[in-house]
Order: sequence, then structure tokens, then C-alpha cells
Amino acid sequence: MKTEDLVAQIKRKNSFLCIGLDVDLEKLPKHLLTTEDPIFSFNKAIIDATQHLAVAYKPNTAFYEAYGLKGWQSLDKTIRYLNSQYPEIFTIADAKRGDIGNTSQMYAKAFFEDMGFDSVTVAPYMGKDSVEPFLTFKDKHTILLALTSNEGAFDFQTQKVGEKEVYKKVLEISKKWKNAKNLMYVVGATKAEYLAEIRRIVPESFLLVPGVGAQGGNLQQVCHFGMTNNVGLLINSSRGIIYASNQENFAEAATSEAQKLQSQMQEILKDLK
Amino acid sequence: MKTEDLVAQIKRKNSFLCIGLDVDLEKLPKHLLTTEDPIFSFNKAIIDATQHLAVAYKPNTAFYEAYGLKGWQSLDKTIRYLNSQYPEIFTIADAKRGDIGNTSQMYAKAFFEDMGFDSVTVAPYMGKDSVEPFLTFKDKHTILLALTSNEGAFDFQTQKVGEKEVYKKVLEISKKWKNAKNLMYVVGATKAEYLAEIRRIVPESFLLVPGVGAQGGNLQQVCHFGMTNNVGLLINSSRGIIYASNQENFAEAATSEAQKLQSQMQEILKDLK
Repeated sequence: MKTEDLVAQIKRKNSFLCIGLDVDLEKLPKHLLTTEDPIFSFNKAIIDATQHLAVAYKPNTAFYEAYGLKGWQSLDKTIRYLNSQYPEIFTIADAKRGDIGNTSQMYAKAFFEDMGFDSVTVAPYMGKDSVEPFLTFKDKHTILLALTSNEGAFDFQTQKVGEKEVYKKVLEISKKWKNAKNLMYVVGATKAEYLAEIRRIVPESFLLVPGVGAQGGNLQQVCHFGMTNNVGLLINSSRGIIYASNQENFAEAATSEAQKLQSQMQEILKDLK
Repeated sequence: MKTEDLVAQIKRKNSFLCIGLDVDLEKLPKHLLTTEDPIFSFNKAIIDATQHLAVAYKPNTAFYEAYGLKGWQSLDKTIRYLNSQYPEIFTIADAKRGDIGNTSQMYAKAFFEDMGFDSVTVAPYMGKDSVEPFLTFKDKHTILLALTSNEGAFDFQTQKVGEKEVYKKVLEISKKWKNAKNLMYVVGATKAEYLAEIRRIVPESFLLVPGVGAQGGNLQQVCHFGMTNNVGLLINSSRGIIYASNQENFAEAATSEAQKLQSQMQEILKDLK
């Protein structure tokens, strides 16, 4: 998907909400467990109930891998359902991959070509030749971890290399890579105060912002420091929406939680116009 | 597997060779392509032909993911074959995972419990709470990326944070994490000259060393700087062994290449005794 199509969708829906499909069998409504593929049944219901309020879906691959082959089957069905039923939706494989060149090439093929995701999250630790193979795919996006939402972000990411923190080096150096226009970045909502400085380095890039909701990040603050003229933000919420209820009404409960975030986003977007 | 059992196996076989099972359908001998599961057929033949010369096998998960569900099936069959036929072999899921705590927990379960690997490679970028979930599993090992064998290692890993490079910070900080005794580290053979300093920080830890062979690393140099009283090294070779021939004699060719490395290792181990 081209970035302008993502922006157009955001403006049409008055939403820059991304919903994280981090599906845990132990948290699913009990009545789904007897269906043939409980994870896909759940995802399908959540997607159908929220697709008018969200612009992106982000399955975290760990939750699928944890169920082995069956889990991969559910992920495969989920991405195919999204691509066939809601082709305007932006899809993110939250896989946090990254390896030496020929291996990253294999990952890129798997997520972009075989599964048909629009984007994949990638870890920067192994540097340029571990990321560039992802960047060669036209109209596909590589979402590089910059500053993550967890406590461990302070172990290495915020350590200073000379004058600058590691995560700023990641932003600066990656900007010079081949096809860097296909880069987006992960910046945790729990670190909203860092966004002003991040915007000085990457004024236009889309940022994928996890950590609003369950992890404690604040939507208004993130938008205040991080929003661009083209919005430039995808705010992810997972548990707060998909596990709003574990009863038969789980899909309606998800609609209602997504609606709350979308309404706040609509207000924020009014000020942008 | 306990570390002492790995060391005992090394001493019994006079080998610290790890064979990377990075299987690419385009490089397989043509006669295997008509079998029901060419990747598993290939792996099984390679394992049977080299298991007396190697102490560890390391499938890189990217190569399996690239083939979707079928690929995961082949990986699953490969690890089950290794665990049932050669239980003394140390197995490494080269997955380079790492995510926020509850997600890393899912990955750890998938690789350690469901698939039964002895170890998994993990990226350090997200810090302590992204790695500690892996460390809680008894007799399982977490192999943290420190200094990788690729060119991109110089982008961030060797940048200086204060007096010390990022990769040294990774070694120092990770040593203090809970259950750090379950840590091993990836150090590329292409950077053998760094090993002396690395040994000052982690004098005893096992190091997984890729990059000997196709990538140009030198075995003698790596051992000179990196070996401990307990050997402390697993030297990985992938393409040099598994693709030694793409003809019907591929397994014999793999034996012969593995034998060359094992003989060199035997010589080196003599000096250790």
C-alpha cells in the first residue's frame, strides 16, 4: 500500500487507530473454543466489528507461533481475510525480525510476498544490511524499532553514544539507507515526551505507537508531540479493545472501546484541518 | 540440556561444530524435490551423515517461515527427529526474537516447550524485560546477539556508549539479569580480534560463533582468542557443509566438509588438554 492511500483512509475514517490482534486462547470467550479455528473466529469477529473504526491491524506473530502449526494457519487465514474483505486496511506483521542479508531477504519474502502483509516490524541491532532487504519491496513498509514502550528500552536504547542516544542514532543512520522512504518507526506511547525530539530527526515518517491503554500511554500527549500535517501516526491498542469482554458480547464490547478511541481521534484531527 | 552435558559431548566427539540448517529449496539436490517433504528429507540426510562430527544443529527459522505452513511443518519434523533420534545433540532455534515481556514469554514457550529446542537466539535491543522471560526455563539457553558477523554490526553494535561499545554494554548489563547463567552469546567469527576483550567480560560463557567458512572467519584465530577451559565455543558452519554438493552425493560431501572442520577442532582440543 502506498503511504498516500493510508493517509486517505485515515482522513476518510477520521481514525488513525491500529488494532493489535494478540490472540491468547486463555483469554478468548469460552463459546468460541468449540469452533474449528477459535483464533480465526475471534479475529474475524473483531475485524468485522471494528473495521469501520480502524485503519490498520497488527497481529503479533509470537501469539500465533506459540500455537505451532495451528497458530500459523490462523495467522494465514487472518491476513487472507483482511486482504480479501478489506483491501483498504493497512496490515502489519509485528514480527520484530532482523538477520544477516540473505536471511532478512527470506523473512521479507515470507511476510510481504507469501502472506501479503503491507508492513513488518524489524529490529535494528544488526544494522544496514539486515534491514535493507526489507526496503527493496515496492509499496511495502518496514517499521524499525526505535524507542519501545517497555521498561527495558532504558537498558540500551536511551544510552548515549557520544552526544546522542542509541535510538536517535537508529533514526539518523537508517534515514540514509537505500529506499529509506519505505521506513516507519516504532515509538512507544509511554515515552511521549521523547516525540518532540524524534520529530526533529524524522519530521515526516509514520510512527507506529504502541502502549496507549493497558501499558499507560496517553493519546493526547502522543498527538501533541508526534502528529504531522499528514497525521504521521498509527496508534495501536490491543488488549484494551480485543479483550474488552470475554462474554458472548465480546465483539460489541470491542466496537465500543474502538469507538471511544476513534471519537478522541476525530476530535484531534479536527484541530489539524 | 545442562551446559555440562554439552561440554561432555564436545569432549566425547572432539568437536565443537554446529551445523546451520538454512535450507533453501533452490539449492537442494534436484532428486529430493519430488519427495513428500524435500526440506525434511534434506535435513534428515544431512543430520544422519554428520551427527557423529557435530554437537549442535541450528535451523535458522527464516528459511522455514519463507515457505509458510509447509516450512513450519518441515522445521517441526526436523526438531522432533533430532530430539528423538539424537537426544544428546544441542539444538538451537536461530530465531533472533525479542519483544515486550508477555510476548517474549509466548516465544519462549513456543521454542522451548512446544518445539523442544535447547536454546533460542534473542536480540537485545528491547532490554532486560524482553530477555528475562526466556531465562526462566530450566536447562534451556538464551543466546543473546552481542557482536554479529555481518557488515551492519558496525552501524550500532560497535558505536561507543561512553567508554564502551554497545556490544560490550550488552555483555555487561545482561550478566546482571535474573538467571543470567542461562545466557550464551553470538559473536561473529569475522570479528575474532574482538574476542580477547569479550572474554574479559564473559570469561566462562559459551559463545555461538557464526561466520567461519562462507563469510570468511578463521577457526584458529577464533579459538586462540575465545576458547576457555571448558571449550566455551560452538562454531557454526552452514552453507560450506550443507551445500558442499547439490548432486546425489550431497550427504557424503557434507560428511567430508564436516570431517575437515572436526579434524581441525580435534587438533585444537589436543592443545587444551
